[in-house]
Amino acid sequence: MGSLAQLKQQIAREFGTPAVVIDLDRVEANINRVQALCDKAGVANRPHIKTHKIPALAALQIAAGARGITCQKIGEAEIMFDGGLEQTSILISYNLIGEARAARLAALLRRGADMAVCADNPVTLETYASAGQLAGRRVPVVIECDTGRKRAGVETAREAVQLAKAIKDNDHLSFGGFLFYPTEQSWPETQKFHDEAVAGIRDLGLVPAIVSTGGSPNLVNMGKLRGATEHRAGTYIFNDRMQMAAGVATLDDCALAVFATVVSRAGAERGIVDAGSKTLTSDVGGLDGHGLILEHPQARIKGFAEEHGFLDLAGVNDKPSVGDVVRIVPNHVCVVVNMVAQLIAVRNNEIVGVMPVAARGKLV
Amino acid sequence: MGSLAQLKQQIAREFGTPAVVIDLDRVEANINRVQALCDKAGVANRPHIKTHKIPALAALQIAAGARGITCQKIGEAEIMFDGGLEQTSILISYNLIGEARAARLAALLRRGADMAVCADNPVTLETYASAGQLAGRRVPVVIECDTGRKRAGVETAREAVQLAKAIKDNDHLSFGGFLFYPTEQSWPETQKFHDEAVAGIRDLGLVPAIVSTGGSPNLVNMGKLRGATEHRAGTYIFNDRMQMAAGVATLDDCALAVFATVVSRAGAERGIVDAGSKTLTSDVGGLDGHGLILEHPQARIKGFAEEHGFLDLAGVNDKPSVGDVVRIVPNHVCVVVNMVAQLIAVRNNEIVGVMPVAARGKLV
Repeated sequence: MGSLAQLKQQIAREFGTPAVVIDLDRVEANINRVQALCDKAGVANRPHIKTHKIPALAALQIAAGARGITCQKIGEAEIMFDGGLEQTSILISYNLIGEARAARLAALLRRGADMAVCADNPVTLETYASAGQLAGRRVPVVIECDTGRKRAGVETAREAVQLAKAIKDNDHLSFGGFLFYPTEQSWPETQKFHDEAVAGIRDLGLVPAIVSTGGSPNLVNMGKLRGATEHRAGTYIFNDRMQMAAGVATLDDCALAVFATVVSRAGAERGIVDAGSKTLTSDVGGLDGHGLILEHPQARIKGFAEEHGFLDLAGVNDKPSVGDVVRIVPNHVCVVVNMVAQLIAVRNNEIVGVMPVAARGKLV
Repeated sequence: MGSLAQLKQQIAREFGTPAVVIDLDRVEANINRVQALCDKAGVANRPHIKTHKIPALAALQIAAGARGITCQKIGEAEIMFDGGLEQTSILISYNLIGEARAARLAALLRRGADMAVCADNPVTLETYASAGQLAGRRVPVVIECDTGRKRAGVETAREAVQLAKAIKDNDHLSFGGFLFYPTEQSWPETQKFHDEAVAGIRDLGLVPAIVSTGGSPNLVNMGKLRGATEHRAGTYIFNDRMQMAAGVATLDDCALAVFATVVSRAGAERGIVDAGSKTLTSDVGGLDGHGLILEHPQARIKGFAEEHGFLDLAGVNDKPSVGDVVRIVPNHVCVVVNMVAQLIAVRNNEIVGVMPVAARGKLV
């Protein structure tokens, strides 16, 4: 068991700040807690790896009982497959479009990847059909359905059934099921959508192998949708201020912190840390300020330059000094991980490893 | 001269979207225009490379007449030095703190790098003295001065003179000058600060080799500060919506666009592009929406998920279809470049090269 002061010194000395640090004990506790929630709700766990982008962490999730993983990009799926998850079921929950992606999807399929993909429109189906033809395998396609967030997803069960029919009628595709992302308010609406869609595809002779719900903020609602087979959540592995605000995590559940150095105290009531928008990102998520400084919870990160975080210290009694290393829980952890080449893994304030963010910046 | 339609197809096919594309003709025009502005104002040009993070583009700026470059991080300076700018004067305009950075700065100095660094406090001076001792060379230090933005920088000329004295009295440091970043309103105040500081250091027997002003939005004010020797601007090489809003660039001066694909049109009045907060970032910069879609200037990028850009198409007559490739001028180009591994360089709509963003994510 090391001391926090020693850990800060070591990180500043060996890595420099800003550095993104994860507590593996907390990571494992988060993984186990959500796995238990899924088990209790009777749905499979298919964590979204967009939060961590690290095959070794996905492997921990699988070892704890997850039935597969979710990716957002073909590049993320490639990294996971090549990083030791070649036996794992991979769902890409994104409309993939274009011949470049079709070829890459086909390559994964030919290498034996257990893939399912997602669509809310016929153009995307063309990509998947092309991949299936190239790979000589039918590509399982789940249909993304929107139930209130007005993001991706067909808006009506009728459209979902139409897409299911197009999938069924295509020699290179197979119908995989439905993808939902209900909001806190839209579970009844989602149930209605789901029941209508399932009835519609039954008339086509289809059954949904996958009925997926999504979101870490939605963990509290898991199991509400009758018919759901699995849940995909990402952020829960680390948590952040947004998850705390959503009521699904406490500060003790936050496994990731940005270690930053106070680099300026030019004014009596203000200071600057070396984590700006190129580290913490400008994601606000409806919160006040850009992160929680654990050592100075009354301090407000009121704004950013690219490499400066501007601190309002007016309400802070024990103000930090230049050279102090502080830990910042970010607003939105998924985008922060994507900013760095590696995470520093610790247990009991001792460094136990460095984990490259292998799928960092895999935008395609 | 290729067609834009062909370029879009080629980028989607060979790279996939989102892809970040720069027009080298516009880049060169921007470089030349600002060099001419500096020449006319009688100040040296020391462009900030945080915008592009690419040694080859810094080399273009030097070839056009820049007297040196500005970096924000020791890691950026290392990349530039190793990338062919070993003869170039490099100013790091940031408080560097800690022994890890001292050792890296010393290593650059020992390799012959022509470095100057920046401080607004005595703790930072300790780092530089340590580097100077390790390298066996005095480290030139410029003093960052705040004149209204309340960011980094000492707030009074008296403090600046105190720091100059501490630098003079240290065997491992040499006094390099002053760094200002005046706002549109604070040029008179900056002049007063400057004059007092210069008078103060004159009594110490010092003269400022560097008096630097900063900022692309401040280009219009270049030359206003009597005594200024150089200007450091970064964003002007590419420009963006923020520079347009500041009145220092037109749309024709914007040399960078994110090529993105419309991946969903689930609603009649809305759509989704595959550039979200992990591509365009959440930097708002006081603007409405998250970027300008050149093909659909009436469309509003109203929000983000990490890989989704949500389009409000209510005001758009000729609405885009799923599969369309569009070009987006970002709000803030400096943070967008930092999100990607490479920029695709074009001239006349033909791809002429791929430029790795060598200093991407160099946070330390």
